[in-house]
Amino acid sequence: MTYSELFEQIQKKQSFLCIGLDSDIDKIPKHLMQKDDPIFEFNKQIIDATHHLCVAYKPNIAFYESQGISGWQSLEKTVLYCRENYSDLFLIADAKRGDIGNTSKMYARAFLETLPFDSITVAPYMGEDSVSPFLEYKDKFVILLALTSNKGAFDFQYFKSQDEGMNLYEKVLLKSQQWGDHTNMMYVVGATKAEYLSDVRKHVPYHFLLVPGVGAQGGSLKEVAEYGMNSHCGLLVNSSRGIIYAGSNEDFADKARLAAEDLQHSMSQLLSNYFD
Amino acid sequence: MTYSELFEQIQKKQSFLCIGLDSDIDKIPKHLMQKDDPIFEFNKQIIDATHHLCVAYKPNIAFYESQGISGWQSLEKTVLYCRENYSDLFLIADAKRGDIGNTSKMYARAFLETLPFDSITVAPYMGEDSVSPFLEYKDKFVILLALTSNKGAFDFQYFKSQDEGMNLYEKVLLKSQQWGDHTNMMYVVGATKAEYLSDVRKHVPYHFLLVPGVGAQGGSLKEVAEYGMNSHCGLLVNSSRGIIYAGSNEDFADKARLAAEDLQHSMSQLLSNYFD
Repeated sequence: MTYSELFEQIQKKQSFLCIGLDSDIDKIPKHLMQKDDPIFEFNKQIIDATHHLCVAYKPNIAFYESQGISGWQSLEKTVLYCRENYSDLFLIADAKRGDIGNTSKMYARAFLETLPFDSITVAPYMGEDSVSPFLEYKDKFVILLALTSNKGAFDFQYFKSQDEGMNLYEKVLLKSQQWGDHTNMMYVVGATKAEYLSDVRKHVPYHFLLVPGVGAQGGSLKEVAEYGMNSHCGLLVNSSRGIIYAGSNEDFADKARLAAEDLQHSMSQLLSNYFD
Repeated sequence: MTYSELFEQIQKKQSFLCIGLDSDIDKIPKHLMQKDDPIFEFNKQIIDATHHLCVAYKPNIAFYESQGISGWQSLEKTVLYCRENYSDLFLIADAKRGDIGNTSKMYARAFLETLPFDSITVAPYMGEDSVSPFLEYKDKFVILLALTSNKGAFDFQYFKSQDEGMNLYEKVLLKSQQWGDHTNMMYVVGATKAEYLSDVRKHVPYHFLLVPGVGAQGGSLKEVAEYGMNSHCGLLVNSSRGIIYAGSNEDFADKARLAAEDLQHSMSQLLSNYFD
Protein backbone atom coordinates (compact mmCIF):
# COMPACT_ATOMS: atom_id res chain seq x y z
CA MET A 1 0.00 0.00 0.00
CA THR A 2 1.36 3.48 -0.85
CA TYR A 3 1.40 6.68 1.21
CA SER A 4 -1.49 8.08 -0.89
CA GLU A 5 -3.54 4.91 -0.73
CA LEU A 6 -3.22 4.84 3.05
CA PHE A 7 -4.51 8.42 3.24
CA GLU A 8 -7.39 7.46 0.93
CA GLN A 9 -8.35 4.66 3.31
CA ILE A 10 -8.23 7.07 6.24
CA GLN A 11 -10.57 9.47 4.45
CA LYS A 12 -12.91 6.70 3.32
CA LYS A 13 -13.18 5.06 6.72
CA GLN A 14 -12.91 8.34 8.65
CA SER A 15 -10.47 6.57 10.90
CA PHE A 16 -6.75 6.46 11.57
CA LEU A 17 -7.11 3.58 13.98
CA CYS A 18 -4.65 0.70 14.14
CA ILE A 19 -5.75 -2.29 16.20
CA GLY A 20 -2.96 -4.14 17.94
CA LEU A 21 -3.38 -7.91 17.90
CA ASP A 22 -1.49 -8.65 21.13
CA SER A 23 -3.38 -11.92 21.27
CA ASP A 24 -2.45 -13.75 24.45
CA ILE A 25 -3.46 -17.37 24.94
CA ASP A 26 -3.88 -16.64 28.67
CA LYS A 27 -6.25 -13.72 28.10
CA ILE A 28 -8.58 -14.71 25.27
CA PRO A 29 -12.12 -15.89 26.13
CA LYS A 30 -12.16 -19.40 27.57
CA HIS A 31 -14.78 -20.79 25.17
CA LEU A 32 -12.29 -20.36 22.29
CA MET A 33 -9.94 -22.91 23.81
CA GLN A 34 -12.09 -25.68 22.28
CA LYS A 35 -11.16 -24.49 18.77
CA ASP A 36 -8.30 -26.02 16.75
CA ASP A 37 -6.45 -22.71 16.72
CA PRO A 38 -7.83 -20.46 19.50
CA ILE A 39 -5.56 -17.51 18.73
CA PHE A 40 -6.51 -17.45 15.06
CA GLU A 41 -10.21 -17.84 15.90
CA PHE A 42 -9.93 -14.91 18.32
CA ASN A 43 -8.17 -12.73 15.72
CA LYS A 44 -10.62 -13.70 12.98
CA GLN A 45 -13.64 -12.69 15.05
CA ILE A 46 -11.98 -9.43 16.12
CA ILE A 47 -11.10 -8.61 12.50
CA ASP A 48 -14.57 -9.47 11.17
CA ALA A 49 -16.12 -7.20 13.81
CA THR A 50 -13.77 -4.21 13.44
CA HIS A 51 -12.24 -4.12 9.92
CA HIS A 52 -14.55 -1.27 8.77
CA LEU A 53 -13.52 0.88 11.74
CA CYS A 54 -9.75 0.76 11.40
CA VAL A 55 -7.20 1.15 8.63
CA ALA A 56 -4.51 -1.12 10.08
CA TYR A 57 -3.89 -4.21 12.19
CA LYS A 58 -0.68 -4.73 14.06
CA PRO A 59 0.04 -8.26 15.26
CA ASN A 60 2.59 -8.09 18.06
CA ILE A 61 4.99 -10.81 16.94
CA ALA A 62 6.23 -11.63 20.46
CA PHE A 63 2.83 -13.01 21.43
CA TYR A 64 2.93 -15.46 18.52
CA GLU A 65 6.58 -16.43 18.96
CA SER A 66 5.96 -17.20 22.62
CA GLN A 67 3.83 -20.14 21.41
CA GLY A 68 6.55 -21.51 19.12
CA ILE A 69 5.53 -23.19 15.89
CA SER A 70 1.80 -23.12 16.63
CA GLY A 71 2.09 -19.38 17.23
CA TRP A 72 3.65 -18.89 13.80
CA GLN A 73 0.81 -20.90 12.32
CA SER A 74 -1.74 -18.60 14.00
CA LEU A 75 0.17 -15.56 12.75
CA GLU A 76 0.36 -16.80 9.17
CA LYS A 77 -3.35 -17.67 9.13
CA THR A 78 -4.23 -14.24 10.52
CA VAL A 79 -2.23 -12.35 7.90
CA LEU A 80 -3.56 -14.47 5.05
CA TYR A 81 -7.12 -14.13 6.36
CA CYS A 82 -6.81 -10.34 6.21
CA ARG A 83 -5.30 -10.44 2.72
CA GLU A 84 -7.97 -12.78 1.34
CA ASN A 85 -11.00 -11.11 2.90
CA TYR A 86 -10.22 -7.41 3.33
CA SER A 87 -7.98 -6.00 0.63
CA ASP A 88 -8.06 -2.47 2.06
CA LEU A 89 -6.05 -3.13 5.23
CA PHE A 90 -2.55 -1.94 6.10
CA LEU A 91 -0.77 -4.73 7.97
CA ILE A 92 2.05 -4.00 10.40
CA ALA A 93 4.42 -6.65 11.79
CA ASP A 94 5.27 -5.24 15.20
CA ALA A 95 8.58 -7.06 15.39
CA LYS A 96 11.17 -4.44 16.47
CA ARG A 97 13.84 -6.19 14.39
CA GLY A 98 17.25 -4.90 13.28
CA ASP A 99 20.63 -6.59 12.73
CA ILE A 100 23.65 -6.37 10.40
CA GLY A 101 22.81 -6.04 6.70
CA ASN A 102 22.78 -9.68 5.61
CA THR A 103 20.64 -10.57 8.64
CA SER A 104 18.17 -7.69 8.32
CA LYS A 105 17.72 -8.86 4.74
CA MET A 106 16.48 -12.18 6.15
CA TYR A 107 14.09 -10.45 8.56
CA ALA A 108 12.79 -8.40 5.65
CA ARG A 109 12.16 -11.60 3.72
CA ALA A 110 10.40 -13.12 6.75
CA PHE A 111 7.90 -10.30 7.19
CA LEU A 112 7.59 -8.62 3.79
CA GLU A 113 7.76 -11.74 1.54
CA THR A 114 7.16 -15.01 3.40
CA LEU A 115 4.45 -13.21 5.37
CA PRO A 116 2.83 -10.49 3.23
CA PHE A 117 2.88 -7.59 5.69
CA ASP A 118 2.89 -3.98 4.44
CA SER A 119 5.36 -2.83 7.04
CA ILE A 120 7.54 -3.79 9.98
CA THR A 121 8.71 -1.97 13.09
CA VAL A 122 12.52 -1.74 13.24
CA ALA A 123 14.93 -0.72 16.04
CA PRO A 124 17.56 1.87 15.00
CA TYR A 125 20.46 1.02 17.35
CA MET A 126 22.61 -0.70 14.68
CA GLY A 127 22.25 2.10 12.10
CA GLU A 128 21.82 2.31 8.35
CA ASP A 129 22.73 -1.15 7.12
CA SER A 130 20.39 -2.67 9.71
CA VAL A 131 17.46 -0.66 8.31
CA SER A 132 18.09 -0.30 4.58
CA PRO A 133 17.31 -3.93 3.56
CA PHE A 134 13.71 -3.34 4.64
CA LEU A 135 13.50 -0.24 2.43
CA GLU A 136 14.17 -2.14 -0.77
CA TYR A 137 10.58 -3.38 -1.00
CA LYS A 138 8.28 -1.34 -3.23
CA ASP A 139 5.16 0.05 -1.55
CA LYS A 140 6.21 -1.25 1.86
CA PHE A 141 7.23 0.72 4.95
CA VAL A 142 9.82 0.60 7.68
CA ILE A 143 8.38 1.94 10.92
CA LEU A 144 11.46 3.03 12.83
CA LEU A 145 11.50 3.39 16.62
CA ALA A 146 12.10 7.02 17.57
CA LEU A 147 10.42 7.89 20.86
CA THR A 148 8.70 4.98 22.56
CA SER A 149 5.94 5.14 25.15
CA ASN A 150 7.48 3.02 27.90
CA LYS A 151 9.31 4.09 31.03
CA GLY A 152 12.62 2.77 29.63
CA ALA A 153 12.42 5.37 26.83
CA PHE A 154 14.10 7.78 29.24
CA ASP A 155 17.19 5.57 29.63
CA PHE A 156 18.70 6.28 26.20
CA GLN A 157 16.31 8.06 23.82
CA TYR A 158 16.82 11.42 25.58
CA PHE A 159 20.60 10.99 25.75
CA LYS A 160 21.71 14.44 24.64
CA SER A 161 24.65 15.57 22.56
CA GLN A 162 25.66 19.15 23.22
CA ASP A 163 27.79 19.09 20.07
CA GLU A 164 24.86 18.22 17.90
CA GLY A 165 22.29 20.04 20.04
CA MET A 166 19.82 17.21 20.08
CA ASN A 167 18.65 14.04 21.80
CA LEU A 168 19.24 10.55 20.46
CA TYR A 169 15.64 10.21 19.25
CA GLU A 170 16.02 13.43 17.24
CA LYS A 171 19.29 12.15 15.79
CA VAL A 172 17.41 8.99 14.72
CA LEU A 173 14.73 11.12 13.03
CA LEU A 174 17.31 13.22 11.17
CA LYS A 175 19.85 10.59 10.24
CA SER A 176 17.27 8.10 8.98
CA GLN A 177 15.94 10.63 6.48
CA GLN A 178 19.12 9.98 4.51
CA TRP A 179 17.98 6.38 4.08
CA GLY A 180 14.35 6.77 3.05
CA ASP A 181 11.52 9.27 2.94
CA HIS A 182 7.85 9.56 3.85
CA THR A 183 6.89 7.16 1.05
CA ASN A 184 8.71 4.19 2.63
CA MET A 185 9.34 5.14 6.25
CA MET A 186 7.24 5.96 9.31
CA TYR A 187 8.22 6.48 12.94
CA VAL A 188 7.02 5.12 16.28
CA VAL A 189 6.31 8.06 18.59
CA GLY A 190 4.72 7.37 21.96
CA ALA A 191 1.50 9.18 22.87
CA THR A 192 2.33 9.43 26.54
CA LYS A 193 4.44 12.44 25.54
CA ALA A 194 2.01 14.21 23.23
CA GLU A 195 3.75 17.54 23.76
CA TYR A 196 6.85 16.08 22.09
CA LEU A 197 4.88 15.38 18.93
CA SER A 198 5.24 19.01 17.86
CA ASP A 199 9.03 18.70 18.22
CA VAL A 200 8.93 15.50 16.21
CA ARG A 201 6.84 17.20 13.52
CA LYS A 202 9.53 19.86 13.05
CA HIS A 203 11.90 17.09 11.97
CA VAL A 204 9.46 14.92 10.01
CA PRO A 205 6.55 17.01 8.73
CA TYR A 206 5.35 14.55 6.07
CA HIS A 207 5.91 11.11 7.60
CA PHE A 208 3.24 8.96 9.17
CA LEU A 209 3.71 8.42 12.89
CA LEU A 210 2.63 5.19 14.52
CA VAL A 211 1.42 6.23 17.94
CA PRO A 212 1.07 3.52 20.57
CA GLY A 213 -0.01 4.31 24.06
CA VAL A 214 -3.53 5.68 23.55
CA GLY A 215 -5.79 3.82 25.93
CA ALA A 216 -4.06 1.29 28.17
CA GLN A 217 -0.83 3.30 28.16
CA GLY A 218 -2.62 6.57 28.93
CA GLY A 219 -2.24 8.93 25.97
CA SER A 220 -4.90 11.41 24.88
CA LEU A 221 -6.22 11.08 21.35
CA LYS A 222 -7.17 14.74 21.14
CA GLU A 223 -3.68 15.92 22.03
CA VAL A 224 -2.10 13.48 19.62
CA ALA A 225 -4.21 14.90 16.78
CA GLU A 226 -3.55 18.48 17.87
CA TYR A 227 0.23 18.08 17.88
CA GLY A 228 0.72 15.33 15.31
CA MET A 229 -1.74 15.59 12.42
CA ASN A 230 -0.49 16.74 9.02
CA SER A 231 -1.96 17.33 5.56
CA HIS A 232 -2.23 13.56 4.93
CA CYS A 233 -3.42 12.86 8.47
CA GLY A 234 0.05 11.44 9.14
CA LEU A 235 -1.11 9.43 12.12
CA LEU A 236 -1.84 5.80 12.84
CA VAL A 237 -3.02 5.61 16.42
CA ASN A 238 -2.83 2.17 17.93
CA SER A 239 -5.02 0.59 20.55
CA SER A 240 -4.50 -3.01 21.56
CA ARG A 241 -5.79 -4.18 24.93
CA GLY A 242 -8.51 -1.51 25.14
CA ILE A 243 -10.19 -3.03 22.09
CA ILE A 244 -9.33 -6.71 21.89
CA TYR A 245 -9.95 -7.36 25.58
CA ALA A 246 -12.96 -5.02 25.91
CA GLY A 247 -15.00 -8.17 26.57
CA SER A 248 -14.04 -11.57 27.93
CA ASN A 249 -17.10 -13.67 27.13
CA GLU A 250 -18.80 -15.02 24.03
CA ASP A 251 -19.72 -11.47 22.98
CA PHE A 252 -16.05 -10.35 23.02
CA ALA A 253 -16.10 -9.38 19.33
CA ASP A 254 -19.17 -7.16 19.80
CA LYS A 255 -17.49 -5.50 22.76
CA ALA A 256 -14.37 -4.98 20.68
CA ARG A 257 -16.48 -3.43 17.91
CA LEU A 258 -18.08 -1.01 20.38
CA ALA A 259 -14.67 0.01 21.75
CA ALA A 260 -13.35 0.51 18.21
CA GLU A 261 -16.47 2.51 17.27
CA ASP A 262 -15.85 4.88 20.18
CA LEU A 263 -12.35 5.60 18.93
CA GLN A 264 -13.45 5.82 15.29
CA HIS A 265 -16.15 8.37 16.19
CA SER A 266 -13.60 10.52 17.97
CA MET A 267 -11.22 10.20 15.06
CA SER A 268 -13.91 11.14 12.56
CA GLN A 269 -14.54 14.34 14.56
CA LEU A 270 -10.83 15.15 14.72
CA LEU A 271 -10.41 14.55 10.99
CA SER A 272 -13.33 16.83 10.17
CA ASN A 273 -11.86 19.56 12.40
CA TYR A 274 -8.63 19.34 10.50
CA PHE A 275 -9.78 18.79 6.95
CA ASP A 276 -12.86 21.05 6.78
CA MET B 1 24.40 -22.61 32.52
CA THR B 2 26.07 -20.32 35.07
CA TYR B 3 29.00 -17.92 34.70
CA SER B 4 31.31 -20.41 36.47
CA GLU B 5 30.08 -23.39 34.47
CA LEU B 6 30.74 -21.54 31.24
CA PHE B 7 34.30 -20.79 32.35
CA GLU B 8 34.73 -24.47 33.27
CA GLN B 9 33.68 -25.47 29.75
CA ILE B 10 36.17 -23.00 28.29
CA GLN B 11 38.97 -24.49 30.36
CA LYS B 12 37.95 -28.05 29.59
CA LYS B 13 37.65 -27.53 25.85
CA GLN B 14 40.49 -24.99 25.68
CA SER B 15 38.18 -22.93 23.50
CA PHE B 16 36.06 -19.80 23.72
CA LEU B 17 34.60 -20.35 20.29
CA CYS B 18 30.95 -19.72 19.46
CA ILE B 19 29.78 -21.06 16.11
CA GLY B 20 27.09 -18.97 14.43
CA LEU B 21 24.42 -21.06 12.73
CA ASP B 22 23.47 -18.53 10.02
CA SER B 23 22.10 -21.45 8.04
CA ASP B 24 20.87 -20.18 4.69
CA ILE B 25 18.80 -22.43 2.44
CA ASP B 26 20.48 -20.78 -0.58
CA LYS B 27 24.01 -21.53 0.65
CA ILE B 28 23.96 -25.02 2.14
CA PRO B 29 25.34 -27.91 0.05
CA LYS B 30 22.98 -28.94 -2.73
CA HIS B 31 22.89 -32.64 -1.85
CA LEU B 32 21.09 -31.78 1.41
CA MET B 33 18.07 -30.48 -0.50
CA GLN B 34 16.87 -34.09 -0.86
CA LYS B 35 16.41 -34.35 2.92
CA ASP B 36 13.08 -33.72 4.67
CA ASP B 37 14.53 -30.76 6.56
CA PRO B 38 17.72 -29.61 4.81
CA ILE B 39 18.49 -26.83 7.30
CA PHE B 40 18.24 -29.12 10.31
CA GLU B 41 20.32 -31.80 8.55
CA PHE B 42 22.98 -29.17 7.79
CA ASN B 43 23.02 -27.95 11.41
CA LYS B 44 23.09 -31.49 12.81
CA GLN B 45 26.13 -32.45 10.75
CA ILE B 46 27.93 -29.19 11.63
CA ILE B 47 27.20 -29.72 15.33
CA ASP B 48 28.27 -33.38 15.31
CA ALA B 49 31.56 -32.37 13.66
CA THR B 50 32.40 -29.35 15.83
CA HIS B 51 30.74 -29.65 19.28
CA HIS B 52 34.01 -30.63 21.00
CA LEU B 53 35.79 -27.55 19.58
CA CYS B 54 33.38 -24.83 20.69
CA VAL B 55 31.53 -23.89 23.86
CA ALA B 56 28.53 -22.23 22.22
CA TYR B 57 26.26 -22.26 19.18
CA LYS B 58 24.39 -19.19 18.07
CA PRO B 59 21.53 -19.74 15.64
CA ASN B 60 20.80 -16.46 13.87
CA ILE B 61 17.02 -16.35 14.21
CA ALA B 62 16.46 -14.24 11.07
CA PHE B 63 17.64 -17.07 8.85
CA TYR B 64 15.00 -19.39 10.33
CA GLU B 65 12.19 -16.83 10.36
CA SER B 66 12.81 -16.06 6.69
CA GLN B 67 11.52 -19.59 5.99
CA GLY B 68 8.33 -19.11 8.00
CA ILE B 69 6.87 -22.10 9.84
CA SER B 70 9.32 -24.62 8.36
CA GLY B 71 12.17 -22.41 9.54
CA TRP B 72 10.82 -22.48 13.09
CA GLN B 73 10.61 -26.24 12.86
CA SER B 74 14.29 -26.42 11.81
CA LEU B 75 15.23 -24.09 14.67
CA GLU B 76 13.32 -26.07 17.28
CA LYS B 77 14.83 -29.35 16.09
CA THR B 78 18.33 -27.84 16.18
CA VAL B 79 17.99 -26.57 19.74
CA LEU B 80 16.48 -29.83 20.99
CA TYR B 81 19.15 -31.86 19.18
CA CYS B 82 21.86 -29.93 21.05
CA ARG B 83 20.08 -30.33 24.38
CA GLU B 84 19.54 -34.07 23.92
CA ASN B 85 22.99 -34.96 22.62
CA TYR B 86 25.48 -32.48 24.04
CA SER B 87 24.61 -31.28 27.52
CA ASP B 88 27.72 -29.09 27.81
CA LEU B 89 26.76 -26.45 25.21
CA PHE B 90 25.81 -22.82 25.79
CA LEU B 91 23.04 -21.90 23.34
CA ILE B 92 22.49 -18.32 22.20
CA ALA B 93 19.37 -17.13 20.38
CA ASP B 94 20.75 -14.33 18.22
CA ALA B 95 17.44 -12.53 18.01
CA LYS B 96 18.18 -8.85 18.82
CA ARG B 97 14.76 -8.49 20.48
CA GLY B 98 13.48 -5.75 22.79
CA ASP B 99 10.06 -4.15 23.32
CA ILE B 100 7.91 -2.74 26.14
CA GLY B 101 7.80 -4.85 29.30
CA ASN B 102 4.75 -7.03 28.66
CA THR B 103 6.03 -7.77 25.14
CA SER B 104 9.64 -8.49 26.11
CA LYS B 105 8.17 -10.94 28.61
CA MET B 106 6.66 -12.81 25.65
CA TYR B 107 9.97 -12.80 23.74
CA ALA B 108 11.66 -14.13 26.88
CA ARG B 109 9.10 -16.92 27.02
CA ALA B 110 9.67 -17.68 23.31
CA PHE B 111 13.43 -18.13 23.58
CA LEU B 112 14.12 -19.06 27.22
CA GLU B 113 11.10 -21.34 27.84
CA THR B 114 9.36 -22.52 24.65
CA LEU B 115 12.80 -22.92 23.09
CA PRO B 116 15.36 -23.86 25.78
CA PHE B 117 18.14 -21.40 24.91
CA ASP B 118 20.63 -20.28 27.59
CA SER B 119 20.67 -16.69 26.39
CA ILE B 120 19.31 -14.17 23.92
CA THR B 121 20.76 -11.08 22.28
CA VAL B 122 18.72 -7.96 23.12
CA ALA B 123 18.72 -4.41 21.68
CA PRO B 124 18.93 -1.64 24.31
CA TYR B 125 17.09 1.24 22.58
CA MET B 126 13.89 0.93 24.64
CA GLY B 127 15.66 0.83 28.00
CA GLU B 128 15.22 -1.03 31.26
CA ASP B 129 11.72 -2.47 31.05
CA SER B 130 12.53 -3.85 27.59
CA VAL B 131 15.49 -5.79 29.02
CA SER B 132 14.53 -6.76 32.57
CA PRO B 133 11.95 -9.48 31.70
CA PHE B 134 14.78 -11.53 30.17
CA LEU B 135 16.79 -11.21 33.41
CA GLU B 136 14.19 -12.97 35.51
CA TYR B 137 15.28 -16.43 34.34
CA LYS B 138 17.71 -18.22 36.65
CA ASP B 139 21.03 -19.27 35.08
CA LYS B 140 20.19 -17.57 31.77
CA PHE B 141 21.83 -14.53 30.20
CA VAL B 142 20.83 -11.40 28.36
CA ILE B 143 23.47 -10.48 25.79
CA LEU B 144 22.94 -6.76 25.32
CA LEU B 145 24.07 -4.92 22.19
CA ALA B 146 26.72 -2.36 23.07
CA LEU B 147 29.17 -1.82 20.21
CA THR B 148 28.33 -3.76 17.06
CA SER B 149 30.68 -4.69 14.23
CA ASN B 150 28.75 -3.28 11.28
CA LYS B 151 29.21 0.01 9.44
CA GLY B 152 25.94 1.35 10.84
CA ALA B 153 27.40 1.14 14.36
CA PHE B 154 28.83 4.61 13.69
CA ASP B 155 25.39 6.16 13.12
CA PHE B 156 24.26 6.16 16.75
CA GLN B 157 26.50 4.10 19.04
CA TYR B 158 29.20 6.80 19.08
CA PHE B 159 26.67 9.61 19.61
CA LYS B 160 28.42 11.57 22.34
CA SER B 161 27.07 13.47 25.32
CA GLN B 162 29.42 16.18 26.53
CA ASP B 163 27.37 16.43 29.74
CA GLU B 164 27.93 12.82 30.58
CA GLY B 165 31.36 12.61 28.93
CA MET B 166 30.65 9.40 27.08
CA ASN B 167 29.26 7.78 23.95
CA LEU B 168 25.91 6.04 23.73
CA TYR B 169 27.49 2.58 23.81
CA GLU B 170 29.30 3.48 27.05
CA LYS B 171 26.04 4.78 28.50
CA VAL B 172 24.46 1.41 27.62
CA LEU B 173 27.30 -0.41 29.41
CA LEU B 174 26.99 1.74 32.54
CA LYS B 175 23.22 2.09 32.79
CA SER B 176 22.53 -1.60 32.21
CA GLN B 177 24.70 -2.57 35.17
CA GLN B 178 21.86 -1.24 37.33
CA TRP B 179 19.64 -3.99 35.88
CA GLY B 180 21.83 -7.06 36.11
CA ASP B 181 25.43 -8.14 36.64
CA HIS B 182 28.03 -10.45 35.13
CA THR B 183 26.09 -13.51 36.30
CA ASN B 184 23.10 -12.79 34.06
CA MET B 185 24.30 -10.30 31.47
CA MET B 186 26.87 -10.21 28.68
CA TYR B 187 27.54 -7.63 25.98
CA VAL B 188 27.96 -7.72 22.21
CA VAL B 189 31.18 -5.91 21.31
CA GLY B 190 32.39 -5.99 17.71
CA ALA B 191 35.89 -7.24 16.98
CA THR B 192 36.46 -4.89 14.08
CA LYS B 193 37.31 -2.31 16.74
CA ALA B 194 39.59 -4.39 18.98
CA GLU B 195 41.25 -1.28 20.37
CA TYR B 196 37.89 -0.27 21.90
CA LEU B 197 37.78 -3.49 23.89
CA SER B 198 40.13 -2.01 26.47
CA ASP B 199 37.73 0.95 26.90
CA VAL B 200 34.85 -1.50 27.21
CA ARG B 201 36.78 -3.51 29.83
CA LYS B 202 37.13 -0.40 32.01
CA HIS B 203 33.34 -0.31 32.30
CA VAL B 204 32.65 -4.05 32.47
CA PRO B 205 35.69 -5.89 33.85
CA TYR B 206 33.88 -9.10 34.82
CA HIS B 207 31.25 -9.61 32.11
CA PHE B 208 31.53 -11.98 29.20
CA LEU B 209 31.69 -10.23 25.84
CA LEU B 210 30.20 -11.87 22.76
CA VAL B 211 32.51 -10.82 19.96
CA PRO B 212 31.25 -11.20 16.40
CA GLY B 213 33.31 -10.13 13.47
CA VAL B 214 36.30 -12.45 13.70
CA GLY B 215 36.78 -13.99 10.28
CA ALA B 216 34.30 -12.83 7.63
CA GLN B 217 33.94 -9.42 9.28
CA GLY B 218 37.70 -8.95 9.62
CA GLY B 219 38.62 -8.88 13.31
CA SER B 220 41.84 -10.29 14.74
CA LEU B 221 41.57 -13.01 17.36
CA LYS B 222 44.92 -12.13 18.92
CA GLU B 223 43.97 -8.50 19.46
CA VAL B 224 40.59 -9.46 20.86
CA ALA B 225 42.28 -11.69 23.46
CA GLU B 226 44.89 -9.03 24.23
CA TYR B 227 42.37 -6.30 24.92
CA GLY B 228 39.36 -8.30 26.07
CA MET B 229 40.33 -11.35 28.13
CA ASN B 230 39.70 -11.34 31.87
CA SER B 231 40.22 -13.70 34.80
CA HIS B 232 37.33 -15.93 33.64
CA CYS B 233 38.31 -15.63 29.98
CA GLY B 234 35.30 -13.31 29.58
CA LEU B 235 35.13 -13.83 25.83
CA LEU B 236 32.94 -15.76 23.46
CA VAL B 237 34.31 -15.19 19.99
CA ASN B 238 31.89 -15.99 17.21
CA SER B 239 32.59 -17.26 13.74
CA SER B 240 29.72 -18.10 11.41
CA ARG B 241 30.37 -18.14 7.67
CA GLY B 242 34.10 -18.92 8.04
CA ILE B 243 33.20 -22.25 9.64
CA ILE B 244 29.80 -23.39 8.40
CA TYR B 245 30.52 -22.54 4.75
CA ALA B 246 34.20 -23.65 4.80
CA GLY B 247 33.11 -26.39 2.38
CA SER B 248 30.23 -26.62 -0.05
CA ASN B 249 30.22 -30.30 -0.99
CA GLU B 250 29.47 -33.59 0.74
CA ASP B 251 32.51 -33.12 2.99
CA PHE B 252 31.23 -29.75 4.29
CA ALA B 253 31.14 -30.95 7.90
CA ASP B 254 34.78 -32.10 7.75
CA LYS B 255 35.77 -28.75 6.31
CA ALA B 256 33.83 -27.00 9.08
CA ARG B 257 35.63 -29.12 11.66
CA LEU B 258 39.02 -28.17 10.20
CA ALA B 259 38.12 -24.47 10.24
CA ALA B 260 36.90 -24.75 13.83
CA GLU B 261 40.07 -26.67 14.80
CA ASP B 262 42.21 -23.83 13.45
CA LEU B 263 40.40 -21.33 15.67
CA GLN B 264 40.38 -23.66 18.68
CA HIS B 265 44.14 -24.20 18.38
CA SER B 266 44.73 -20.44 18.35
CA MET B 267 42.39 -20.02 21.31
CA SER B 268 44.13 -22.76 23.26
CA GLN B 269 47.43 -20.90 22.79
CA LEU B 270 45.91 -17.58 23.85
CA LEU B 271 44.33 -19.17 26.93
CA SER B 272 47.63 -20.72 27.96
CA ASN B 273 49.38 -17.35 27.55
CA TYR B 274 46.85 -15.76 29.84
CA PHE B 275 46.30 -18.45 32.45
CA ASP B 276 49.84 -19.80 32.85
